[in-house]
This record gives sequence, C-alpha cells and structure tokens, in this order.
Amino acid sequence: MERTEFRDLATPEEAREAIRSLALEGGIDRVPLSEARGRVLIARIDAEIDVPGFDRASLDGYALRARDTFGATEADPARLEVVGEVRAGKKPEVTLEAGQAVEISTGAVMPAGADAMVPVERTDRADPDSTARASDESMSDDAASTDSATDAVLVRTAVTPGDNVMFAGADVAAGERALGPGTRLTPREIGLLSALGVEEVPVRSQPRVGIVSTGDELVRPGETVDSDRGEIYDVNSYTIAAGVEDAGGEAVLYPHAGDDRDELERVLREAAAECDLVLSSGSTSAGAVDVVHRVIDEQGELLIHGVSVKPGKPMLVGRLKGSAYVGLPGYPVSAMMVFRTFVAPAIREAAGRPEPATATLEGRMAAEERYEEGRMRLLPVGVVAAGSGASGADDEPDGDAPDDRLVYPVDKGSGATTSLADADGVVEVHPDTAYLSAGERVTVHLFSPDIQPPTFLGVGEDDPRLNQALDRLERPRYLPIGTRPARRRLREGTPDVAVVAGPLESRQRDETTVLTEWRREWGLVVPPGNPAEVEGLEDLVDRDLRFVNRTPDSGLRASLEAALEDLADARGLELDAIMDEIDGFEFGLRAHESPARTVLSGNADVGLGLRATADHLECGFVSLGEQDVRVLVNENRKGKASVRALERALEDL
Amino acid sequence: MERTEFRDLATPEEAREAIRSLALEGGIDRVPLSEARGRVLIARIDAEIDVPGFDRASLDGYALRARDTFGATEADPARLEVVGEVRAGKKPEVTLEAGQAVEISTGAVMPAGADAMVPVERTDRADPDSTARASDESMSDDAASTDSATDAVLVRTAVTPGDNVMFAGADVAAGERALGPGTRLTPREIGLLSALGVEEVPVRSQPRVGIVSTGDELVRPGETVDSDRGEIYDVNSYTIAAGVEDAGGEAVLYPHAGDDRDELERVLREAAAECDLVLSSGSTSAGAVDVVHRVIDEQGELLIHGVSVKPGKPMLVGRLKGSAYVGLPGYPVSAMMVFRTFVAPAIREAAGRPEPATATLEGRMAAEERYEEGRMRLLPVGVVAAGSGASGADDEPDGDAPDDRLVYPVDKGSGATTSLADADGVVEVHPDTAYLSAGERVTVHLFSPDIQPPTFLGVGEDDPRLNQALDRLERPRYLPIGTRPARRRLREGTPDVAVVAGPLESRQRDETTVLTEWRREWGLVVPPGNPAEVEGLEDLVDRDLRFVNRTPDSGLRASLEAALEDLADARGLELDAIMDEIDGFEFGLRAHESPARTVLSGNADVGLGLRATADHLECGFVSLGEQDVRVLVNENRKGKASVRALERALEDL
Repeated sequence: MERTEFRDLATPEEAREAIRSLALEGGIDRVPLSEARGRVLIARIDAEIDVPGFDRASLDGYALRARDTFGATEADPARLEVVGEVRAGKKPEVTLEAGQAVEISTGAVMPAGADAMVPVERTDRADPDSTARASDESMSDDAASTDSATDAVLVRTAVTPGDNVMFAGADVAAGERALGPGTRLTPREIGLLSALGVEEVPVRSQPRVGIVSTGDELVRPGETVDSDRGEIYDVNSYTIAAGVEDAGGEAVLYPHAGDDRDELERVLREAAAECDLVLSSGSTSAGAVDVVHRVIDEQGELLIHGVSVKPGKPMLVGRLKGSAYVGLPGYPVSAMMVFRTFVAPAIREAAGRPEPATATLEGRMAAEERYEEGRMRLLPVGVVAAGSGASGADDEPDGDAPDDRLVYPVDKGSGATTSLADADGVVEVHPDTAYLSAGERVTVHLFSPDIQPPTFLGVGEDDPRLNQALDRLERPRYLPIGTRPARRRLREGTPDVAVVAGPLESRQRDETTVLTEWRREWGLVVPPGNPAEVEGLEDLVDRDLRFVNRTPDSGLRASLEAALEDLADARGLELDAIMDEIDGFEFGLRAHESPARTVLSGNADVGLGLRATADHLECGFVSLGEQDVRVLVNENRKGKASVRALERALEDL
Repeated sequence: MERTEFRDLATPEEAREAIRSLALEGGIDRVPLSEARGRVLIARIDAEIDVPGFDRASLDGYALRARDTFGATEADPARLEVVGEVRAGKKPEVTLEAGQAVEISTGAVMPAGADAMVPVERTDRADPDSTARASDESMSDDAASTDSATDAVLVRTAVTPGDNVMFAGADVAAGERALGPGTRLTPREIGLLSALGVEEVPVRSQPRVGIVSTGDELVRPGETVDSDRGEIYDVNSYTIAAGVEDAGGEAVLYPHAGDDRDELERVLREAAAECDLVLSSGSTSAGAVDVVHRVIDEQGELLIHGVSVKPGKPMLVGRLKGSAYVGLPGYPVSAMMVFRTFVAPAIREAAGRPEPATATLEGRMAAEERYEEGRMRLLPVGVVAAGSGASGADDEPDGDAPDDRLVYPVDKGSGATTSLADADGVVEVHPDTAYLSAGERVTVHLFSPDIQPPTFLGVGEDDPRLNQALDRLERPRYLPIGTRPARRRLREGTPDVAVVAGPLESRQRDETTVLTEWRREWGLVVPPGNPAEVEGLEDLVDRDLRFVNRTPDSGLRASLEAALEDLADARGLELDAIMDEIDGFEFGLRAHESPARTVLSGNADVGLGLRATADHLECGFVSLGEQDVRVLVNENRKGKASVRALERALEDL
C-alpha cells in the first residue's frame, strides 16, 4: 500500500500539463455533409468550382447588350427585338446580336452575346396585348422561332455592361479560400460547403474515451440494487460519458468490472487498446488502484500520482500502451469537478472545440468562505439571479449582469449525488487564497455549456402543492431543507423564497413578507385499513407502537410537538416525559414521504405525515389537524419574474 | 399569377404569431439514459428509491454505538471489542452489542446495532502488532469468528449518534421531487437520474421538420452541376436542415422535386403526412407557388401570404393536413435570416429548448445604415472585436464587452452564398427605424448558438502566403476584396488589417502602419509548355492573344498598368492606346486564380497572375517582375492578440 500514499503531490498546473502532454488527438474522419454539423474541419477547404458556374441573371427581365440601351429613358425607350427566352435550369439556345433581347428569368444563364440585363419592371412589350400573348406562347425552350421575329420590348432605362448580372465566380471563385482548418461547422458553413458542391468533409476524429467503473457496490441503472448488500447505482459512468460527449469526445462504456482484479485488468487493457483516453473512477479500494498500477507499470508510464487539489488528491495521470489514462475520484461531485477542471479541456482541445463562452460565468459570492491554504480547492456552487427585477428595465434582465448573480457553495464535502443537480459549476480557489469574502467576484466554470442557471431558488418544506407549482416554472431550483434551515438561509439573503410550515397562527416576527399561504392537513400515517386501530395522539403515547418521526427541522415536527405540548398540559406532565413514551420519537427522517414509506414497508406502525401523502401512497390516515404553509419572500426579490410566476402558479392551483 | 401579388402583407408580429399558433409539439419519446443528453424532460421525475438505500459509512473506520465512546479522548480512549468487518458491496454478517465495534470501509452498510462510526485515524488497534496482523487476516466476510473475540480497538474520540453515517434516504428520499418537466438533460442531471436507477427517461419528441426544395436549376451536393444549363448546388436544403437540428428538431430531407408540378405536389403531401412542419424554399417560380397553394387549399389553410419584412416578403405560413407549413425565400442568406427570425424560435419552443444566451450578442454599429421605413429589415451582419487589447487587462479579453464589438453589414441584397460564411447573424431593424447611427448599440441574433464571432477580420488581396498564415489563426475571417476597397475599409475603421499589393516602392502616405510585408512574383500565366511562345508584355500588345485580366481593385492590375505605362512611355504612346490593343483588357476577373483557370480551360491564351498560382495549377508562366504585398494594420488594433498572431505566423513561414 506504499503507492497510495501521496508523498509528492503534483501541483494542479503540473497535472494539467501532464494531461495536455498525453496527445489525445485522433485522426481524420470523412463525414457526409448531412452529418457534419458540429464537427471541426481538419484542413482548409478551397473552392474547387466557380459559384455561380456561369454568368447569371439576377432578376426577371431581358438580357441584352448594354450599348443598345445607351440614352434610353422612361420617355424615350430603346426598342429591341425579342428573340427568345431562357429559364433557370435551361441552356440558352440563342445567341444575341446587336439590337436584340432575350427574355430571361432569375437565376438563368445569360445567353451568348448579352452583357447586361434590364429588370422587367423597366420594360414594356412593344406590341398590343394579343401579339405579346402569342409570342409568350411561342417562347418555349426551343424558341428563337420565326414567329417572334416581329416581337419587341421597350427598354426604359440605360444599363452598363454587367448590370444585374452575377458573373461566373463572382460569389466564390475556384481557388479561393473557403473555410480554414479548425472551423466548427454550423449551418452557415454547411451552406457554403453545399454551394461548393462538397458532399464529404474531412473533420477531426472525435477522441475515443473509454470509461471503466470499478467497485463491488456499483450497479448499472436499470438493474436492481440490493440495499442489504450496500449496493448503489453507478453514477459516474453515465455522468462522465455525457461530459465526454459534451466536450466533443466519443464515450465508450466498458462492462462493470467490480473488484475482480483479473477482470478489471482485462477491461483496462482492452480499453487502452481501443481508446485514445481511459478514465476510471468509482473505487477508492486499494485493490483497484493496485491493478491500475500493475497495468501502467507493464504497458505505460505513470506521470502524476496525487495532485494538490481538494477534492481530487488521489488523481492519477499516466500513459497506457496506445492510450492516455486518468483516474478520477469516486464521489460523483468530485469526479465531475475534476473531470471539468482537468480532463474536459484536453478532450475539447483534441476535438478542436474550444470551450464556448457559455461555459463560464461571473458572479459574486453570497457569503464568506474560508480555506486551509496550500491546496487548490474546487468549490461546487449554485448560482442565483439576485437582481430585483423591480426596475422593469428591459435591457438588463434578471441576473444577466455579473453583479446580479449570487454564487453560493453547495455540498461541503459529502458524497451526496443530489448536489450534482443542485450545483451549476465549480469555482477554482487558488492554493494561496485563505478566504473568499462575501460579494467577491468569482468565475464559475459551469459543468456543461448547456447549463442555464436556475431562474428561481427556493428552500424549505417539501409540499405536494408547491411541487405542482414548481412544475410550472421555467428552470426552478428547490432545496427541501425544512423550515428551520430555510428561515436561516432566507435571513442570510441567498434564496428567493423560503417555504415554512408549522402550527396554525404561529407566525413569527420575521414573516413580514408572506408571498402566499395555504393550509394542509397533517396527522398519523398508518398501514392501509389502520390495522392497529390508531385513533389519535394518545395511542402513540399510551400504546406500544413503533413510530417514525420527521427531523426537528421540519414543520410537521413543530406541529407534532405543539400538539404533544397540549397533551402534556392536559395531563399535567412535562413535554419531555410525554416524548419519552413514544418509541422512535427521537430519531426523525429528513424527507416528507419517508415515514409513510417506512410504515408501508412494515418497519413501523405509525408515521408522521400529510393527508396528501397518505392518499398518494394509499395508506391509512388519522388526522391531527391543519398547519399553515407560508411562502416567505426575499425582500429584494419581490419583483423578480420567477417569484411572481410562482405566486401566480400557486394561486392558479 | 394574382396570388403572387402581396396585397395584404402581414406584420412580422402577425407572422410570428401565426407560426406560433401552428403547434409543432410532438409526443413523448422514451430514451435510454445513455442517449438522453440534450433532450428535455416532459414530466417531473420523483425519486422512487432512497439514495443511499441503507445507512452508509462515510469513511473507513469502525462502526459502533455512540454511547460507548462518551468521554473518550486522545489520552483516555474507549476500548471496544472488534467483532467483525464489513466491506462495500457486502452484507454485514454481525449484529453489534454494547462494547463492540466492527471494522467498516467507506460506502459499506452499517451493521445492525451500530449508530455511528469513528474514522480509522482516530483509533488504534489495542493489541501488539503481531496480534493485530493475525486478526487482519481472520476478518474476512464470514468473520465474526471466535479468533477475533480477543481483538480490540482504542477509540480516541467521542461521537454522537449519526456521526460519519449517511442515513438511508439522506441523499435523496423516495417521493422527493428530483427533476421538473422541461429540464434539459446535461451531464449533472444524467448523474442524478443514474443515482436514482432510472434507465429510461420520458422526453419531448423532437419536432420532425420536412425540407422540400424546388427549382429545376438545383442539384444536390455530390452530384455534378451542368453550368451550361445554369445548374447550381442546392444550398438551402442542408443549411436549413442543420438549422433545424440546431434548434432541437429532426430534419427530413425530401427528394428534390425540380419544377415538375405533379412530383412537387406528391412530395409536399408526403412531407405533410410525415412531419410536424414542412419548409420549402429555393424556388420563386410561379409554378411552385401554385402547387403549394393547391395543396394548402385542398388540405389546409393559408394563414399568412406575404410579410412586411425585407428580405422575406414572399413568406407563406399555413396549415397542411397534419402539419404546419412555412415557405422560405430562395436566396440562402435570406432563407437563413427568415428561418432564424421566424421559424427557429417555434422549433425551439416545440422542442422545449429555449434559446441559449449565446444565441445573441450586443455590439455597436461600425457605420451608419439608412433604411426605407415601413418594413421590418433583416440585416445580415458580421462582428469584429474592436478592443485594442493593448491594455493587457486579463479580465477584459478582446471583444468580450459589447462596446468592444463592432457590427458591420454584410451583403446588401445580393444572393451571394459567400455572405453565409461572412455573416455571423442578423440585426432586426424595426419598420419605424430610418437609420442606425454609427456607434449605436444593436443586438445580433447569431445564426447558430455555436457561432463564435471571428477573432480576426482582414480584408484585401488574396495571397497564397497569407492563406497559409490565416490557417494558423483561430477563427480568422478574411474577405478577399482587393487592394483598393481594402484601403477604404481600413480608413473606415472596421477591419483589423488590410492586405494591399502593388508595384514596388509605391508605398502610399497612409501606410504608416505596415505590420509586415513581402514580395511576390507576378506575370503572365500561359498554358503548360507556353504553346504560343509568349515572352513578355509586348506580345500581349502586339500579337492577337486572348487575354484575361483582373479587376481594377486588384494589386496585380495596378502592377500590370504600371508596367504598361512604362511600355507606353518607351513607345511614346498614351497608356489608353496601349490598353486598347489588348484583347480582354477591359474586363477583369475578381478572384486571383480565375485568369489562370480560364487559360487552363482553353477560353484564353494569357492570364494575369502570380508565379505561385501558375506553379500550383501547373501552368506556364512568364515573369514580369515582383510586387510588394503589405499588411496594413488598424491603428487601434496593433495590440490585438490575433493581429500579433498573424504577424508571428507570417514571420514563421
């Protein structure tokens, strides 16, 4: 186990440099134009043809010799003999002589002998209607017929050679530089390549990135996890695969190797042979690290073993035969941050797709953050628009200006996967930075250029009605942290709203800014049919029932304690004495449906919950009353569009 | 033809409203998680399982009962009996009693009876090394063996219940709201869905958009165009298809129908039956419009016929059985602008993909633009970063601030396809706007959110050496407009550099700011082997040779005229008299290789060109001397990164 000690940690810059040195570039793909969108040209493309390939009429009208129109005016038109017609897509069958004109349509080939054209609006047919009509019909492709010899056009303007004609090659000429190497192909480039008749384009190969997950506890989504054995779903494989595709690479998921060393070794060797880069993550077990070392020792070179960054210290960077290798941390948020910071830039570089401007944004810290110095710190953060929106200024929408964006830390070190969705990106904190002060400008590296920070940040109670309203907002973020923490977070000023719940009429002094409120019925959730015949709170105290509580942060717990206090008063007892009588009172669950689900699973007889939850899960329910749910709004965000939208949505329900 | 008159033009807002009313939304797709990136959830996803599904050790260490550690300190540790081990992915085989501990690894299931854990760093094995080692080996999965009964651990800290344990559902609990409807799935959302074990997600169907191109003159890229018949490549089909995909739709290209009315009608009906939206473009012919009208009359409804917008007046909006229909203008830039302005937003809306922030940017007009009032105007524009970059301020890179971006019009109405690649987007000018003044702030709607405006804008001579240097820049734009227009554009202040060429030592007064310069050899390009035995300029004047000139804007033309002036002087003649003697002198070609290619095609005997061109095309060459090529730099952009990069690239060559 000597190897897993990190005696010589590399600096973050050394790690970046090592990854950059791995040269992930693949070769050249030749793709049909119809599949070229988003790809990157590997070579310059010069025009091989003239566009147009012929002298082309720019308008409907008459092709003629310019000198035949010299001196022509509205009052004194030139009279020319009409000797034929040319339509778009047809070959002119006639050659123009002096004094002649040919009817021509937009896009058609200028006939030989013509050097300009006059739009139809500046002409009149010289003959009476009947004659004009007759000639109209005679002027088919095989025209220049004898019939039309008598047909004439009056040209009421003078033109010079080249007027209203697009000459061959005027648009693009053969030999001209059309698109340079490294050009990303968007619709307009595809348009230009179409015009040049290019049907297949040479583009950079997408780097092939193999993803190897290890760890006996990991199960692929779609299979069944056995929680008794401590199995969990493999988060990193699909997350990193999507990140690889975001960066322009091709992701290859390898079969899960568990902790079987031989199998892991086989998979690593296979991935190294088939890919430009192999990423592994999901295991901190010494066994997996040993296998990686063995394969690298035999087939490659270990460049970096451990980096002075938190999280990400155990990162490995090396070379395998024919492939690069990076070992990522196992916790999903850590893995994504390290991937974003160190690996994605190298894949983008190899794919020829520089990071789009949307991949970062600026904001200011919502609160002070302190650090141990000496290690680079990757801080997962969320972003919230803090602009009031009340100004109604159209040119500065909510949160578009850096100073209007608040950046707040998410997850301080736990392995929670929810922080994946609660964080928008990562702030890189320099090793020498001791703290980020509140209000300090920081750069957020978004996890994906496609991420648009939420328009709304709410915290507090989980509530079925609220959830329905959230479904009607565009990109809301809601953190169900309970009533007490929500009040604190609102005081600190980060969220737009805090949703609090508790006993009726228990409004606190700080609740001056209630956006809206409603009531909900709460009580005891029991199994379907209420087999234990629970009738009320007394049963919980007096009978031997296994109870499941909510955490003290929750509004339901506050209502329960208030009701128990009334019961204690009625019995002339202390509240503590009453609570002690309830089996399971001390230990509460965080999420609002969890007690009901515990009851359903048979692991408890009674759970604290809402009637709505009992109905939804088809449990029995013993009502203990109603409680208030109040949406408290941040004083500075009353006018914010998303806050108003939430208010409307809650009213509409 | 009554129908193609536009008596009642709709306003742009009416057109948008009509397209919005067409309801392009498709249904629901169920896609595997591995293919879900970029798609948009159609329904809320609540957690169906607890994550983790069990009480989980957060660190490597010992699971125990917290009350057994009360009072324990570094100096006075608690001594607990070690009765087994649990590893990640394994089921605990032991139940903890008072005074006992179980060795546990990160991520493993907490054994029954334990309510907290202590990290290994805060413990010591109580027995001498040898004993500890022996117990290490005995602690396999089927442990809790009798051997380990004597093994003990010293716990040097007190913990409280729950310490270092992630309880079941602490991350996400069953019943909690995970992701809302309308959420775009980026890697982080895919991570959360992985954690929840979701393998298939309900996402919005992508709107199916059929693209029908008409016009006898159009040929699909990959086929051969017959220029004699006036054929050109179909630009709009692939361009619009790529635009549809950019906006989140699925593009379906229908076979090209030409102007065959029956075939066009069949294709339109087929597309309407199969797609949510049918787009046609590429033909302004009355025949095609008639067919569209017939099909709409029989199967649907025409909502808009003609819109008060330039370009885009002939736009059609209607309903076909089972599909929406929009008719786009035929010219590529017009088609793309109208698509971008009116159609793409509706596709995005249907796909649930709001326009990303990158799809627009702000800048200021490089020069005044005047308009006829009364119609909305779509102005194709390019964008150039005008920031000096000389300040060296890292926090404000070139052109990132709106005031640093110059917006200049591209293509004033021609049908040129090159303007596709020369324009970055469109500025919508309100019907009441009479002019945009120089320096006025405008919003540019980029043709694609993937477009990153060029880092460099050069204008002037086309030159092989220059082209090689441009290949080394990142996203350069170079407009080969010739020397004279380049000087004018540079004086106006828009480009970064102007590349001018002309006779040696002919430096003009305004050329104070030459970035770099080189010489190139010019002369007469003749067929391979020089069959006409051309020896010099005199042959051109004195013999009956068909000559191909360059346009007066070009530096080569300037050198040629200077040489002819010397010849005229030598002969005691006027320059005009000399020029009149040359067959083809008056009419010049715009692009630098075009004369040589004309010679190669047999349509001329002698062309004006560079030795480099003659060598590249394997023509013969008669040298007439050298000329200077000078890169003149915009005074305000000398410090711009891309200008310095061009300078370096030219020096390196």
